[in-house]
Amino acid sequence: MKKFTCVADIGDLKAALAEAAEIKKDRFAFTELGRNKTLLMIFFNSSLRTRLSTQKAAMNLGMNVMVLDVNQGAWKLETERGVIMDGDKAEHLLEAIPVMGSYCDIIGVRSFAGLKDKKEDYEERVIEQFIKYSGRPVFSMEAATRHPLQSFADLITIEEFKTKPRPKVVMTWAPHPRALPQAVPNSFAEWMNATDYEFVITHPHGYELDPAFTGNARIEYDQRKALEGADFVYAKNWSAYADPNYGKVLSTDRDWTVDAEKMALTNNAYFMHCLPVRRNMIVTDDVIESDRSIVIPEAANREISAQTVIKRLLESL
Amino acid sequence: MKKFTCVADIGDLKAALAEAAEIKKDRFAFTELGRNKTLLMIFFNSSLRTRLSTQKAAMNLGMNVMVLDVNQGAWKLETERGVIMDGDKAEHLLEAIPVMGSYCDIIGVRSFAGLKDKKEDYEERVIEQFIKYSGRPVFSMEAATRHPLQSFADLITIEEFKTKPRPKVVMTWAPHPRALPQAVPNSFAEWMNATDYEFVITHPHGYELDPAFTGNARIEYDQRKALEGADFVYAKNWSAYADPNYGKVLSTDRDWTVDAEKMALTNNAYFMHCLPVRRNMIVTDDVIESDRSIVIPEAANREISAQTVIKRLLESL
Amino acid sequence: MKKFTCVADIGDLKAALAEAAEIKKDRFAFTELGRNKTLLMIFFNSSLRTRLSTQKAAMNLGMNVMVLDVNQGAWKLETERGVIMDGDKAEHLLEAIPVMGSYCDIIGVRSFAGLKDKKEDYEERVIEQFIKYSGRPVFSMEAATRHPLQSFADLITIEEFKTKPRPKVVMTWAPHPRALPQAVPNSFAEWMNATDYEFVITHPHGYELDPAFTGNARIEYDQRKALEGADFVYAKNWSAYADPNYGKVLSTDRDWTVDAEKMALTNNAYFMHCLPVRRNMIVTDDVIESDRSIVIPEAANREISAQTVIKRLLESL
Repeated sequence: MKKFTCVADIGDLKAALAEAAEIKKDRFAFTELGRNKTLLMIFFNSSLRTRLSTQKAAMNLGMNVMVLDVNQGAWKLETERGVIMDGDKAEHLLEAIPVMGSYCDIIGVRSFAGLKDKKEDYEERVIEQFIKYSGRPVFSMEAATRHPLQSFADLITIEEFKTKPRPKVVMTWAPHPRALPQAVPNSFAEWMNATDYEFVITHPHGYELDPAFTGNARIEYDQRKALEGADFVYAKNWSAYADPNYGKVLSTDRDWTVDAEKMALTNNAYFMHCLPVRRNMIVTDDVIESDRSIVIPEAANREISAQTVIKRLLESL
Repeated sequence: MKKFTCVADIGDLKAALAEAAEIKKDRFAFTELGRNKTLLMIFFNSSLRTRLSTQKAAMNLGMNVMVLDVNQGAWKLETERGVIMDGDKAEHLLEAIPVMGSYCDIIGVRSFAGLKDKKEDYEERVIEQFIKYSGRPVFSMEAATRHPLQSFADLITIEEFKTKPRPKVVMTWAPHPRALPQAVPNSFAEWMNATDYEFVITHPHGYELDPAFTGNARIEYDQRKALEGADFVYAKNWSAYADPNYGKVLSTDRDWTVDAEKMALTNNAYFMHCLPVRRNMIVTDDVIESDRSIVIPEAANREISAQTVIKRLLESL
Repeated sequence: MKKFTCVADIGDLKAALAEAAEIKKDRFAFTELGRNKTLLMIFFNSSLRTRLSTQKAAMNLGMNVMVLDVNQGAWKLETERGVIMDGDKAEHLLEAIPVMGSYCDIIGVRSFAGLKDKKEDYEERVIEQFIKYSGRPVFSMEAATRHPLQSFADLITIEEFKTKPRPKVVMTWAPHPRALPQAVPNSFAEWMNATDYEFVITHPHGYELDPAFTGNARIEYDQRKALEGADFVYAKNWSAYADPNYGKVLSTDRDWTVDAEKMALTNNAYFMHCLPVRRNMIVTDDVIESDRSIVIPEAANREISAQTVIKRLLESL
């Protein structure tokens, strides 16, 4: 594996899940693999879970880790040719990226969607430039349109908790006061579509995601109907994708909040969320604190998904 | 030892001091103990000495270290249930803390008193929540009301320099332009009271500390009288504890500054301060530069106190 | 070697280059040397290349690394005696520096020229104080007047690419919108003067550097004439050194930009720059992207120069 930005990169899901399970049994079985190897983690956006879990995963593999925090907007890279660089951009990406590559063996990049320019976001310019110019294996620590380490951790978690071969998984939009990228729902849809689960997406009108990600998933605008018989409820907010509302908040309707009454419609479903979660917007206190809430083991599996990915990138060196 | 926030946690002081001395003789004798173990250091307030000495201590023990800087006020955690989280708090502590616990083996927390709400400060809400919800051994890197790694280092230093079994130790208030928490003097008092030293506290009227910490220590309002025959002078500023002046600066009277004339009243005492120290407010240049000043070895012992504490927490895993 | 701030510290250049070449062949041949040794990197100014390459170099040697970011201006150290410290300076360097020294084995310091007070800058007050008071070997990660890790990497790069024993090396001033220190050109001149290369400096009138650094180098005000027959072109901007214009931008004349027409005057010269570089100010896109541009291998050699220096400091412990 030479890069990791989407579900296709991981290849056979059964093999990946088996490898993740083996790592979880003994996280320190591969410390020789990372000896004298360095991971560079570059954050264009701040991070808590991703930073800690990915650093931990790399250290589990015996790697050295360097973290570079690029303050949001503070380090402006020129991307065009021919520009007279007499403004606020002090460096061109064609120099910056290969240099960073020269000091490490593997690069992890976090760079969110700006939600201003849909084309720019959906072209994944930042991470694609790292792939093209760094000379190193690159993995996504959440990019503009996908968050594959999260989705892989979600999948591991579902596999651990499912009690039937083909569970019904429902991803539901839920309200949030701010405009959030589509990376997590896009990515989750992409990964669910790569399984043989029954997968349903529910959201208000106007919140349709990019069909490139949702594929053949059933879209159901009636949240209650979608939740019927669900084995897993995956809640998430996202801003609008469809033009002309790209990046906008169209609704903060708390009628979409996941509560006990809605969970009662399910097949005693497990509740999932990638965190951080706004209580009583996305989900009520009682649901997230219930014994069917698996948000903490889900977050803990971020270490496992990251370690599986980094292990494969190390093996490719 | 499953947590370290106060003198009671360390148990028998003689045993702890013997262990600290053994560590100081060979800091790298226990590198196997921390192998494949990770310390997470969380700073809600900035740090120089604590950050470097604690990280060094953990690395001496062979641990991996992750540092999380939480900008003051920037990462707002909701602590109440039932709140509709549509404001500036993006995460509830009931999710944030267990997740952080899932990525490490031991947690160090720094969180100062806000000096606005005495009840909130003295309930030690932040560190107590980490102890309750993280699922990991937690130690204080200075909390709202105590700074036990400093006090333990102070004790180690006094033991190294004392020339009689029961030295006279005088903690004196000294002026400072800003309002400082009571954590260092509270903690020092608590630790001194756990020894058989002669312990005297001196400060202007209005600067009385919480009796829960000062215990049976002699309180002497006349600084000169207090200093007579002292073997160790421990200078520190703190803001008022007593109502209605909690957190206020009542005096910046430089007549309380420790100078050569006052040191002449002592039994050729050693001068101590936890640093950083404001010269010619807390202490004059000549006193802090004299050969009786032990502020640098005192600071260096922060590595030893931290290593002793982390070693014990590792042994408890 | 007990410190590294200038070319004289490295001693015999041939020996240093041989050692660098040996390290480059196997970066991990000396991992035992740094075991249980800690590097403290202190940044008074921000950094990308220096931070990553130096940290990588120390990890290659098996060291532990601690990084301390001192926000520009935020951590104000008092440097004078006798001052009543009741203002914004919370600590005196006479306490701060020895304490930092007590938690590590080697210290790297980055502290740029302020460009306000020439005397203060050229006395190198910050790094000299670390050398004097820290009790540890100290090396420069760019100080006010020199950037010796850069110059050493430049020299390694020239040695790798040169095709004759005594190449002609031309350092040319080039325009930039902001006022930059003289550290890089000073240092490069100092290192080139320590070789037997032919070394020429070209810049507009008013941009004369301190003769203590330029020594006997030929100064040529006609850029085109200087470039004739050059084997290496080293471009760099700097602000004025000569009074009364110290620290000022006297020209942003793009007639000094290095372009293909000027490179055609050379002996098919290699193009060098320490990065970050502003394209079409310092150099045109086509020159920096040409196969004669060696800016990326030059930056990659920062890891090698740092590792050679740290190795020698470790050997001196």
